[in-house]
Amino acid sequence: MIILGIDPGYAIVGYGVLKYINSRFTVLDYGAVTTPAGMPFPDRLVEIYDSVTALTGKYRPDTMGIEKLFFNTNATTAIEVAEARGVVLLAARKNGISLIGEYTPLQVKMAITGYGQAEKRQVMEMTRLILNLEKIPRPDDAADALAVGVCHAHSVRGF
Amino acid sequence: MIILGIDPGYAIVGYGVLKYINSRFTVLDYGAVTTPAGMPFPDRLVEIYDSVTALTGKYRPDTMGIEKLFFNTNATTAIEVAEARGVVLLAARKNGISLIGEYTPLQVKMAITGYGQAEKRQVMEMTRLILNLEKIPRPDDAADALAVGVCHAHSVRGF
Repeated sequence: MIILGIDPGYAIVGYGVLKYINSRFTVLDYGAVTTPAGMPFPDRLVEIYDSVTALTGKYRPDTMGIEKLFFNTNATTAIEVAEARGVVLLAARKNGISLIGEYTPLQVKMAITGYGQAEKRQVMEMTRLILNLEKIPRPDDAADALAVGVCHAHSVRGF
Repeated sequence: MIILGIDPGYAIVGYGVLKYINSRFTVLDYGAVTTPAGMPFPDRLVEIYDSVTALTGKYRPDTMGIEKLFFNTNATTAIEVAEARGVVLLAARKNGISLIGEYTPLQVKMAITGYGQAEKRQVMEMTRLILNLEKIPRPDDAADALAVGVCHAHSVRGF
C-alpha cells in the first residue's frame, strides 16, 4: 500500500510518501510544496493543486492521510489554510484516491507515541525511528506529514 | 463584461451570472449547486469544482465576485465552507478568470443599499430592483450571489 501523508497549509504543504507492506514502512519521498507570499491567493491554490496532482501521478498512492484543522486565534490564517486544504482534498479525489483519512494533531500524537502529552520533538523523533531514518526530516511540515502517514497506516490496517 | 457572482458553501453554492455593459445589468443565469449531505466530503468538493467549471465553460465570465468568510460560532461548518470556497477559487483560476474580487457581507450590503444596517430582505429587494427582476430569486443563496455580482460590478467599474 502506498500512502500519501499531508500536513495542510497555503504557504507550505508538507508531504510524505510511504510504502507500507507487512507492517513495514519504506519512505519513498517527503518534502514541502511552498507558495510565495507575493503570489495572488488563487494562484497559490493552483500551485498546490498542481503539485499534489504531480505527486499522485508520480507515486500513485492508494490512500491519503491528512491533518484535520482546528480553529486558533488567527481566524484569517485558519480560513486560508482551510481553503488550501479543500484544494488538496479535491486533488486527491480527482486523482483517484478514494480512501482519505483525517486526523487531529492529538490523534497523530497518540498514534506515534501512545502519549497525548508528547512534545512535538518527541513525535518527530519517534516518527524518525518508526521510519528508520537517519535524521528527522526537514522541514517540520514534511516530518509532520510523515507522522500523519504513519498514523493513517495504523488506522487503515484493518480495512 | 460577464460577471460570475458566488455565495460560497459546501451544501449549497449560490451563483449568479450577469452581463454588465454601459452600467446596465442583464441577468444571464442564477441558481445553486447543491451537494447531498450523505456524500463523502471530498466528493462534494469534486461536485462543486465540476459545477463551477461547467458554469465558466458555458458563460465565459471575465471576472468573479465571491463573498468573504468570517468566523462564526460553528467552527466545523466554517472550516468546511472555507474548504469548498478554496475549490471555487481554484476552479475560477483554472478556467481563466484572472480578476477575482472578494467582499464581506457588509461590503455587499453597502454596495447594494448604501446602508450598513440594511436587513437581508432589503438587500434582496434592492438587488431585484437593480437587476429588473420580477421576483426575488430563489433560493436565497442565488439572490446573495447576484448581490455579490452587483457589488463586484460596481467595484471593478474603475478597472
